[in-house]
Amino acid sequence: MPMVRAIGIDPGSRFTGYGIVEGDGNRLRHVQNGTIRIPPKLPFPERLKVIYDRLSSIIQDVQPHCMAIEDVFFAKNVKSALRLGQARGAAILAGVNVGLPVYEYSALQIKQAVVGYGKAGKDQVGEMIGYLFGLRELLESNAADALAVAVCHLNTHASRVRWKLPGTL
Amino acid sequence: MPMVRAIGIDPGSRFTGYGIVEGDGNRLRHVQNGTIRIPPKLPFPERLKVIYDRLSSIIQDVQPHCMAIEDVFFAKNVKSALRLGQARGAAILAGVNVGLPVYEYSALQIKQAVVGYGKAGKDQVGEMIGYLFGLRELLESNAADALAVAVCHLNTHASRVRWKLPGTL
Repeated sequence: MPMVRAIGIDPGSRFTGYGIVEGDGNRLRHVQNGTIRIPPKLPFPERLKVIYDRLSSIIQDVQPHCMAIEDVFFAKNVKSALRLGQARGAAILAGVNVGLPVYEYSALQIKQAVVGYGKAGKDQVGEMIGYLFGLRELLESNAADALAVAVCHLNTHASRVRWKLPGTL
Repeated sequence: MPMVRAIGIDPGSRFTGYGIVEGDGNRLRHVQNGTIRIPPKLPFPERLKVIYDRLSSIIQDVQPHCMAIEDVFFAKNVKSALRLGQARGAAILAGVNVGLPVYEYSALQIKQAVVGYGKAGKDQVGEMIGYLFGLRELLESNAADALAVAVCHLNTHASRVRWKLPGTL
């Protein structure tokens, strides 16, 4: 099975995490992870540009085959949903504008794929990601979530190929 | 006072309205308006790309000096806020990515600027815009709202210049 390199995104208007993972059948390899810190004093439109520009530059560098992002249904309130939605839109555009297919996974699917249990806590997801890739250094929470959605996609992708389901990159 | 051409945006994940208005002191001139219809069957990331690409192309054609967009604080619920946020993010990026300054106005400011009354209904805003520009043909609701925020910006801009407040394009 050909190697697939996925960039996972955990979007936010203050911190946007990203994590790049390569999958090759059952083997997963950590490539890179990080957190984009958006200066809170910037006007909001400029903050979206920071997310878009930084992610575009990372995508340009690491040349992933696809993007994976959590499909969000909940937020603390309407105001935070509006902010999160805009950050998420900026992140997705950084992918689709260079032709990357973008895959969305629910929190349930991500937890199921990473921890094997859909009701796992956020901490458990982070711990499992740290363990999976032998990342001893403290993994930042947004970066861990971004790696988690990339892992979720690659596992889903691997199952699809294994079971010959309608496939995707 | 130099002429300023503003593109106003009324974003939405199903319909995104745009309206281009030129302002020259107290005179406002309607340039163009329309509604981008986003095919609802497209995957959500692709829908964001439709908004971004269509607006980028309109901006390329009409070369506005700035973008004006309603600053949204309310939505029916968290789910619709997330969708609206993403559409709004895509629209803003189409502006900031080509260096346009993006100005945000509250619904109150827009109604105040267009109807002269902050608690005016949505219909009144549309009627006033149709009247203001002598647009006899039925103006679509999203396009009318987009023209309204452009008018709001140009009036605010005109007042700023007139009163020598810290100015903006």
